Amino acid sequence: MRAYDVIAKKRDGYSHTREELAYLIQGYLDGTVKDEQMSAWLMAVYFQGMTKEETVMLTDLMEHSGATMDLSAIRGTVVDKHSTGGVGDKTTLVIVPLAAAAGVPIAKLSGRGLGFTGGTIDKLEAIPGFQTSIATEAFMAQVNDIGAAVAGQTQNLVPADKKIYALRDVTATIESIPLIASSIMSKKLASGAEKIVLDVKFGNGAFMQKQEDALRLAETMVDIGKGLNRQTVAILSSMEEPLGYAVGNSLEVMEAVQTLQGKGPVDLTELCVTLAGYMIYLGGKAEDAQAGLKLAQEILTSGQGLAKLKEIVAAQGGNPETLDDFSKLPQAEFKLEVPSLQAGTIVGIEAKEIGLCSMLLGAGRENKESQIDLAAGVWLHKKIGDKVQAGESLATLYYSAEYAHRAEEVVEKLQAAYHLGENSEAKTLILRVLE
Amino acid sequence: MRAYDVIAKKRDGYSHTREELAYLIQGYLDGTVKDEQMSAWLMAVYFQGMTKEETVMLTDLMEHSGATMDLSAIRGTVVDKHSTGGVGDKTTLVIVPLAAAAGVPIAKLSGRGLGFTGGTIDKLEAIPGFQTSIATEAFMAQVNDIGAAVAGQTQNLVPADKKIYALRDVTATIESIPLIASSIMSKKLASGAEKIVLDVKFGNGAFMQKQEDALRLAETMVDIGKGLNRQTVAILSSMEEPLGYAVGNSLEVMEAVQTLQGKGPVDLTELCVTLAGYMIYLGGKAEDAQAGLKLAQEILTSGQGLAKLKEIVAAQGGNPETLDDFSKLPQAEFKLEVPSLQAGTIVGIEAKEIGLCSMLLGAGRENKESQIDLAAGVWLHKKIGDKVQAGESLATLYYSAEYAHRAEEVVEKLQAAYHLGENSEAKTLILRVLE
Repeated sequence: MRAYDVIAKKRDGYSHTREELAYLIQGYLDGTVKDEQMSAWLMAVYFQGMTKEETVMLTDLMEHSGATMDLSAIRGTVVDKHSTGGVGDKTTLVIVPLAAAAGVPIAKLSGRGLGFTGGTIDKLEAIPGFQTSIATEAFMAQVNDIGAAVAGQTQNLVPADKKIYALRDVTATIESIPLIASSIMSKKLASGAEKIVLDVKFGNGAFMQKQEDALRLAETMVDIGKGLNRQTVAILSSMEEPLGYAVGNSLEVMEAVQTLQGKGPVDLTELCVTLAGYMIYLGGKAEDAQAGLKLAQEILTSGQGLAKLKEIVAAQGGNPETLDDFSKLPQAEFKLEVPSLQAGTIVGIEAKEIGLCSMLLGAGRENKESQIDLAAGVWLHKKIGDKVQAGESLATLYYSAEYAHRAEEVVEKLQAAYHLGENSEAKTLILRVLE
Repeated sequence: MRAYDVIAKKRDGYSHTREELAYLIQGYLDGTVKDEQMSAWLMAVYFQGMTKEETVMLTDLMEHSGATMDLSAIRGTVVDKHSTGGVGDKTTLVIVPLAAAAGVPIAKLSGRGLGFTGGTIDKLEAIPGFQTSIATEAFMAQVNDIGAAVAGQTQNLVPADKKIYALRDVTATIESIPLIASSIMSKKLASGAEKIVLDVKFGNGAFMQKQEDALRLAETMVDIGKGLNRQTVAILSSMEEPLGYAVGNSLEVMEAVQTLQGKGPVDLTELCVTLAGYMIYLGGKAEDAQAGLKLAQEILTSGQGLAKLKEIVAAQGGNPETLDDFSKLPQAEFKLEVPSLQAGTIVGIEAKEIGLCSMLLGAGRENKESQIDLAAGVWLHKKIGDKVQAGESLATLYYSAEYAHRAEEVVEKLQAAYHLGENSEAKTLILRVLE
C-alpha cells in the first residue's frame, strides 16, 4: 500500500477499507506516512467527508493506537460524560456527584484547558489540597469505595489522536465532523467508559457555532458509539450565552457548589440535571431517562449531591470545608464592576468574548506554557432576557495585580459583548436529545 | 501572516492576495511554511481551484523564486515551445530547426525524461558526440551564430516549483489545473522566452487524459502568458495513439530526420509544421499564422530544416553525417517483430501501454537512477485506421541482452495495446488553437 494511493482515493471521493485506514494511522505513528501526506489526506477528508462505517473504523483504530484504560475492576456500569466545551461550563463538578450519589460509578479522567478557562482538572485544583494525580489502582479503588473519582490522564491514551490533532491544528483541518467525532470518541472509548453521555454545544461560545453542525457532530458520535457497542446519548445544548454566571476556575467551583445547594442558575441546573439524569439511566439506576432526571433532581434537592462532592474532595486530599466557606478558595486581589453603558433588555451575549475577557484576566491559558490564575475570572450579573439600567453592573471582574493593566480593555470588551434591545426572544437551552 | 490562515482561506473558497501567495511561496522555500502546511494548501487548491488572477500571480512568484535566464543578448524575438508530453513526442527535434531556419532565434532548454522514453536531451545524446551541457554565454552565442541551440538546464531556475512539485508528487496533489499550469509556465518564463507555443496533448498517452481537462489547462496557460505579457499560443493535439511510429531515443532521432527529409509520418509532420508555423509567426517572421505554417512547410520540403539540424548538431559537437547514415546511431542488439494475433482494422492503440513497452525495453527511466538504453524502443508499423493481417507485424521491438528477458512480456503487452475492429473513426490530430 502507498500513502499516495490512499490520499488519492479519498481525494476522488471513494471510501476507505479498514486496511487503508489502519495503514494511515499506524503508518503515521511509525513514520511511514509523512506529515505532508497525512495533512493532504486530512484536507481531502475535510472536502470529501467519511461514511459512517469509515468514521467508526477510524475511531476504533485510533482508540487502539496506544494504551487503553481497563476499568473492569470497577463494580457496576461505568458511565462517562464529555462536553464539547464552552464558556462557563462547570457541569462536570455538578454531575459527577449527582450521578455517583445515584450509584453510578464515575471514573472521570479530565484534562487541563487551553483557552478561556482551565479544564476540569484546573478547576478542581482551585480547591486547596485537591489532588488530581492518582495512580490507576488507587483511582479505581476510590470509585469502588465512594462511587467517583476525578483525575488527570496519566497513561499514553490514543497517541494517534495526539499526533494527528497537533497536525490538524497547524494545517486548517480541524473543522471536519468525522475527524472531530473520531477524535473525541476515540479518547472517551480509550478511557474505558462502557456508556457515554455527550454534551454537544452550539452557538457563538461553542466549538460548533452552527446548530446544524453540532447536530451532525452529535449524530456522528452517537453512530460511533453504536458502531462500537458503547451506548451513547448526546444532549444538544445552547452556548449562545455563557452557562451560568461564573467564568473562571475558583468562581466556577463556587457556582457548582451553589448549584448543588439548589441555589444555582436555572440554565446550569437544568443542563446538569439532564446530563446526570441520562447518566443515571444509562448506568442502570433508573428505568428510563425521565426517571433518571427525576432522581437526579431529588439528589440535588436533598443535598446528597453536595455531600458526595465533599466526599470526593476529602478522598482526593482537599478540604471539604472550603465548599461551605468560599473565603477559603483562592481570592482575587482586585474586583471591578462593569457598568452597562445603556438601559435596555439583554438580547444577546457574545459568549466567546466573555471567555476571552476571563482569559485576559489570567483565568485561562493563552498558550501551553501559560500559568493559570485560579482566582481570576468574570462573574456575570445579567443574562439574556434580563433588564439593565444604564450604569448598573453587567459583571464583576476578578483579577490580580499582574493582569490589572488589562482591566480597562476587558471592561470595554465585556460591554461590547452585551447586546441590548427592546425584547429578547425566548431561550432554549436543551434543543434535542439523540440516543 | 500565518500559514494556518492562508490555508483556511483557500479551504473556505476565498481568493488569495498577492501577499498571501508570496508568503506561501517564499515561506515554503525558507522553511517558515512547513511541508504539511503546503500540502494541505495544495489539497485545498485541488478542491477550490484558483482564479485566473491568482494563477497569474502564483506563476509570477514561482518564476522569480530563483534565478531567471536573461536572453537579452540574443538578437530577435526568442520563441520557446513546450509540450505537455506524450508517447513518441520528438517534435522538438523537428521544429527547432524549422523555426530557426525561418530566422526565429531558438534558445531551447530541455530536460531529461522520467517515464516512457528520455527527454529531448536524452534523445539528442543518441547522436554520437552531441553535447548538451553548454555554458550560458556559449549557448547564447550559438543562437546568435546559427539561430538555435538546445541545452540542458544548468541554472537553478524556479526552485519553488522543484520543491512544490516534489511535494505534490507524494501527496496526490498533482492533478490540479492551476497548479499544473503555473508549474509549466513558471519554468518556461524563467527560461527567458518572450513568446511561447504550447503543445497541449490529450488522450490515453497524455498527462491530461480528457479533452476538456487539456482544454482548461491550455486556456489557463494562455491566460497566464497574457497576464504576464508573454504572448502564448496553445495547440491542442491528440495523444490517443503514439505520435509517429518511433518510440525510443535513437529511433526517434531517425524518425525526426525522416520528417525533415519530407518522408515522415503524416501526423508528426502536420503537428511539427503547425507548431513551427506558430513559432515563426510569433517570432515575427510571418504576417500571420497561416503564412507561418506555409513557410514552415516550405522549409521542410526544401531541406533547409534538415540542413539547420545538421548545423546545430555540428555546432554542439555531434557528427552531422550520422543523420545521413542511421547505422552510425546507437543500434540495438536484438530486434523482434510483434505479430498481430488477428486480422482487422486498428481502431485504437493504447499509447500509454506502448510507452510502457518502450520503457520496459530500457528506453525510459523507471526511476531517477535508471540508465537509459539509447538504442532501445519500439517502432510501430500500424496506426489507427490501418488494416492488419493475422501474423503481420504490428511493431518491431529493439533491445539489448540486458532487457531480453522482458521481450515476451512486452510482445504480449503490445499486442494487448492494439484494438482491432471493423471500421475506425476519423482521427483528428489538432483539435484547436488557442491564442
